[in-house]
Amino acid sequence: MKVSELGEFGLIRLLADIVDKAKNPENISWQQALIGIGDDAAVWESDGTIQLATTDSLVQDTHFDLSTTSWEELGWKAIAVNLSDIAAMGGIPRYALVSLALPGELETDCIADLYRGMAQIATEFGVAIVGGNVAHADKTMITATLLGSPEDKAVLTRSAAVSGDQVAVTGYLGLSAAGLRMLKQNLDFDAETSRLLRRAYLQPMPRVKEGQILLQQGVRAAIDISDGLIADLAHVCEASQTSARIRADSVPIHPTLEARFEADCQRLALTGGEDYELLFTASSQVVAQVRQAVSCPVTVVGEVTAGTPGRVTLVDSAGKSIPWQQGGWEHFKSEAPRSK
Amino acid sequence: MKVSELGEFGLIRLLADIVDKAKNPENISWQQALIGIGDDAAVWESDGTIQLATTDSLVQDTHFDLSTTSWEELGWKAIAVNLSDIAAMGGIPRYALVSLALPGELETDCIADLYRGMAQIATEFGVAIVGGNVAHADKTMITATLLGSPEDKAVLTRSAAVSGDQVAVTGYLGLSAAGLRMLKQNLDFDAETSRLLRRAYLQPMPRVKEGQILLQQGVRAAIDISDGLIADLAHVCEASQTSARIRADSVPIHPTLEARFEADCQRLALTGGEDYELLFTASSQVVAQVRQAVSCPVTVVGEVTAGTPGRVTLVDSAGKSIPWQQGGWEHFKSEAPRSK
Repeated sequence: MKVSELGEFGLIRLLADIVDKAKNPENISWQQALIGIGDDAAVWESDGTIQLATTDSLVQDTHFDLSTTSWEELGWKAIAVNLSDIAAMGGIPRYALVSLALPGELETDCIADLYRGMAQIATEFGVAIVGGNVAHADKTMITATLLGSPEDKAVLTRSAAVSGDQVAVTGYLGLSAAGLRMLKQNLDFDAETSRLLRRAYLQPMPRVKEGQILLQQGVRAAIDISDGLIADLAHVCEASQTSARIRADSVPIHPTLEARFEADCQRLALTGGEDYELLFTASSQVVAQVRQAVSCPVTVVGEVTAGTPGRVTLVDSAGKSIPWQQGGWEHFKSEAPRSK
Repeated sequence: MKVSELGEFGLIRLLADIVDKAKNPENISWQQALIGIGDDAAVWESDGTIQLATTDSLVQDTHFDLSTTSWEELGWKAIAVNLSDIAAMGGIPRYALVSLALPGELETDCIADLYRGMAQIATEFGVAIVGGNVAHADKTMITATLLGSPEDKAVLTRSAAVSGDQVAVTGYLGLSAAGLRMLKQNLDFDAETSRLLRRAYLQPMPRVKEGQILLQQGVRAAIDISDGLIADLAHVCEASQTSARIRADSVPIHPTLEARFEADCQRLALTGGEDYELLFTASSQVVAQVRQAVSCPVTVVGEVTAGTPGRVTLVDSAGKSIPWQQGGWEHFKSEAPRSK
């Protein structure tokens, strides 16, 4: 079977299974590992401290298109997507390592700009870039690894959702996917709209502080929205062995998105992906506390239900089921990879 | 200026400089960072424990050729090259994260074999593979990040060599470069030679235990030999602000290498690279102790001298200087990247 037939998530399951079979339970690293492959970040305990680690790559012509993205934006984003995974665990990011693969004919100024973008977001979030590697390749690829730790011993996980929890999200959804579309289709908007969408797609602001607040307020289940709301909620449901329901009309859509992408704004918000907002589940009381404690919007978009593990249902305001096509970003499965 | 003109090491210096300028000394991550960009691994202190982290990538058609390399060997090597960096700091490797970029048309069996190779070496060295990421790309690229810590608070560094130290290496040099040549030129050897060279190139055994022993015995300066003996000794000399002298005829060459690559064996040993042996410098007394404590050969190949920082001189048995061409593996600088 080809990788494209198995798909990204099937492949991850296969690889996790191989690692699991080779696991040596007598080895101290395995004994101290708390969460392995399958959550936003790996978690282990070392000398009484919880450590978090995550890695993510941006590949030219898969994740970015150099004709529409500046090197500085790319640097920002390469770190941001990893920070978002640390945020989704409620962690404090601390150290970054960066592995670069790039063509020799690139101008060094480009790579300097790339690193300026990385240094900028690293400084913003108190992260020290302490290592890395450069290698030759035909196309540019940036892999960052982020290390951090939570303030206390608890972390947010995908597997802690329980039936009856509310499903809530931070911020607005769909802006990043709209930004991608604007760049790909060369859509012409006013400067403010253009800046908003471009920033959402290329310079997302990971919800690091908010993730820590979620944890402090008693939230236990969270994920960052990278594949799209429905797909990421399905990941939570699968890991938690629950189902969930989303009320389509409750999904938070930014007024500008609604104004500019009227026909499509709901689809972008539900399946667009790369929002790097946090999706979490908790009791209504805890959600209310979170709303008081954070400065960004917090919107309840549905609830966790008992039922087929991993199943997400979309309903209208009357509670009637809305059919939806499998959406969300999955590597390999899509026929033509979008240049996002 | 193009990346290929600046070269790998010039580029690393440029990027380290950008990171350094953006450093916020008031941030706790920077305060606890002990060694940043420029050594084999990054080092920081967290809750009284020293942490080590390193990352390295293998890029298709730059580092490996799928027509001569099995997926299982590739998986082994992707982890091995990182383990070797932890070994060069005297650390105990603990956790690995793996970021894969690969074409959708690949067979999943290949990727399963790749992961089996990684799981095999991880088990061998007590490492838990706890996370990763998969993404679509035109060519395969494997980036691993290895995390570990030394037994006590000390680490081996590139910058601790002092004039008067002996320069010593573990094992034999040149076998890996000979293995690469055998595969590229389809050289026909007896089964035992063929296995020895292939293993040296594709399934190197990083000197993890030896690195820890070096530290216990009082060695402070070390590097792993990935770019080639001369080039890596030059890295040590540059970081330590010293010069060094290598006696060409003292370099340890395996009898099989000598028999099969007579004319070229010394050049392979001096500049071939990818040996993943340890090069270290220490007093003659400490080197003698190390020799007693480890089970592999330990050979003194020269000495650290005062002089132009980073300069390595090659001499014959009479102490006469031997001219040598810039060798060693450097990304971007070589006109045609070798498919290693």
